[in-house]
Amino acid sequence: MKSRPGIDDVRLLERLGIAVPIIQAPMAGVSTPALAAAVSEAGGLGSLGLGAATAESARTMIRQTRALTAKPFNVNLFCHRPAKANAQAEAAWLAYLAMEFRSVGATPPAVLREIYQSYQTDEAMHQMLLEERPAVVSFHFGLPPARKIAELKAAGIVLLATATSLQEAQRVQAAGMDAVVAQGIEAGGHRGVFDPNELDEGIGTMALTRLLVQGTSLPVIAAGGIMDGAGIAAALALGAQAAQLGTAFVACTESAADSAYRQALLADTHRATTMTRAISGRPARGLANRMTMLGELLDAPPIPDYPIAYDAEKALSAAAKAKGNAEYAAHWAGQAAALAQPMPAQQLVAALVTELRCSIGALRDVQAKWEEHRVGAVEAVIA
Amino acid sequence: MKSRPGIDDVRLLERLGIAVPIIQAPMAGVSTPALAAAVSEAGGLGSLGLGAATAESARTMIRQTRALTAKPFNVNLFCHRPAKANAQAEAAWLAYLAMEFRSVGATPPAVLREIYQSYQTDEAMHQMLLEERPAVVSFHFGLPPARKIAELKAAGIVLLATATSLQEAQRVQAAGMDAVVAQGIEAGGHRGVFDPNELDEGIGTMALTRLLVQGTSLPVIAAGGIMDGAGIAAALALGAQAAQLGTAFVACTESAADSAYRQALLADTHRATTMTRAISGRPARGLANRMTMLGELLDAPPIPDYPIAYDAEKALSAAAKAKGNAEYAAHWAGQAAALAQPMPAQQLVAALVTELRCSIGALRDVQAKWEEHRVGAVEAVIA
Repeated sequence: MKSRPGIDDVRLLERLGIAVPIIQAPMAGVSTPALAAAVSEAGGLGSLGLGAATAESARTMIRQTRALTAKPFNVNLFCHRPAKANAQAEAAWLAYLAMEFRSVGATPPAVLREIYQSYQTDEAMHQMLLEERPAVVSFHFGLPPARKIAELKAAGIVLLATATSLQEAQRVQAAGMDAVVAQGIEAGGHRGVFDPNELDEGIGTMALTRLLVQGTSLPVIAAGGIMDGAGIAAALALGAQAAQLGTAFVACTESAADSAYRQALLADTHRATTMTRAISGRPARGLANRMTMLGELLDAPPIPDYPIAYDAEKALSAAAKAKGNAEYAAHWAGQAAALAQPMPAQQLVAALVTELRCSIGALRDVQAKWEEHRVGAVEAVIA
Repeated sequence: MKSRPGIDDVRLLERLGIAVPIIQAPMAGVSTPALAAAVSEAGGLGSLGLGAATAESARTMIRQTRALTAKPFNVNLFCHRPAKANAQAEAAWLAYLAMEFRSVGATPPAVLREIYQSYQTDEAMHQMLLEERPAVVSFHFGLPPARKIAELKAAGIVLLATATSLQEAQRVQAAGMDAVVAQGIEAGGHRGVFDPNELDEGIGTMALTRLLVQGTSLPVIAAGGIMDGAGIAAALALGAQAAQLGTAFVACTESAADSAYRQALLADTHRATTMTRAISGRPARGLANRMTMLGELLDAPPIPDYPIAYDAEKALSAAAKAKGNAEYAAHWAGQAAALAQPMPAQQLVAALVTELRCSIGALRDVQAKWEEHRVGAVEAVIA
């Protein structure tokens, strides 16, 4: 069997300047400067999801975070192929949703817009990053052009990118990233696939982490279905150098999740999660509701390109929310969401570290027991 | 956070009478008495997949295994709802496959049969189990009737059952099973869902293991995407008391896999896996080939019920195999199949144990490093 690069390695922690192997997932729309700063203050890596921000609002969030912590944090950008507008498809999608708008007393927008720009083409965002120089920048949905990568690296910024397959991870490595986020199918929120129209094998975190540890020379960050210290210990056992948790941080006091989102996440009778394109136009995992169901009906027209579809959903869910209806909301959640617990982020990171220590200790204890038991079993056979 | 039942616990190992926390997945059609006996001799739990066997052929395989080892092993039975025949649907499926049969110089069968009986209704199989009394019996696709469970328990047999969700695991617990196999979406072969027509959230092993450890009081056996000692260490870190590996054992000398299957599994350029109903009528994960593609085409008719569809695929793949064509074969494989390595089963179990020890040791080392690094980081902040 091949060696396990990474497992007894803290290179990544040193490179990121963090004390514990815990990364808060960026989560555009859910993360806040307060959340990112709290996680970084607690020794992990806090993150800001800036994929939906303009260069100027992104700059403000970075400065707000800096005002709260002197420690390193991560800012995440979306590198999707810019949307292909299709007026006919967008009109058909709006027509399909018209009755839903009516049911919440609203009128559908006349047209749908590409509500935010890919970092691929956003030069203002890139210049802002070079000026602000956050310690870490991470990419989702693909990789930026080589020139942007070179300029960020020259600015001393540590670069991460998401991969959902070994093929994507090999491209991440070839592009010169410092580490790869192995995003398993369990993960909540947007799936980081480079091309949403290619076949997606949907690889689980357990398999993907191991495939990337064995198949690349990059430090691996495991993501998807990890909610507690036992999950982090499992990620490290697989050879990851850190674990990235999203859903676990949604329930934190400092997140931007509204009360309906928190209630849905923490409900006693938990809704199943589902992978849907109906909300944004790209596959993303969230708690099933009327909006995700609308994407699954047989008479559903093709969903507009990302993020054009998101413009419709944001209008619909805002109108519904005004009536106390959360059935069209993007309640992103991973498959282990039922394990979420509400608490301040610093307390969560401290609990994760305690649990991680306990899990590693318990693994040693169980090994000692089965080694002893094994000797017993072997002796019984000999006797 | 709740406690982690199981993690420093070897109850399950004692109950199963095994020395190391490794179970070879049953794999009907792939497992053999030689494979099961070799795994049990090495201190794990070998398994026979008897779901496709008659009572008498199952008895023979149990006796053949007993002739090779005095140690405990597991026999697996299928508990699916008996097939609903639908002559019209079966004729349409055969008509759809007619050109494929022709392409390999064969004629489709005139009709399709229910090629094996569910343990739900197989009284002869049940009586054979009560007579032969294997140490462990495991169930897939659901649970047998209460009377059969009571009689097996009265015979002193340890009982296991597969669950793919917390809801199924709660039914496994309520039925009085001794442990639950948490089968994640990564797993190769047939998915153990109780009802293939219900919505399947497709939960990954990382999330599912944790949900079942937290949500049931049963010992949990993690399965899906586990190929090496690092994966077993991760399963134990999640609170599982053992790991079940299937694909890793397909490549063993003692398995019944034919040379085309071995070649496909060990190929340098690895095919993706896919979840298909086209082979057997129930969802199962295998290497993508022409047969799995046929199930995905838009003009594909509804696939006959399990195991009726399997009758067609077995005829087609046998005819193709005679011409050296493996494009219709059931090459079951999990999502981490690329990590498979060919070797005798006893050698594989020994390697897994060595790797497991290394992984636990490496986790301790990495913890020591980040604790030290953490003190350093904290001191740097104080200074």
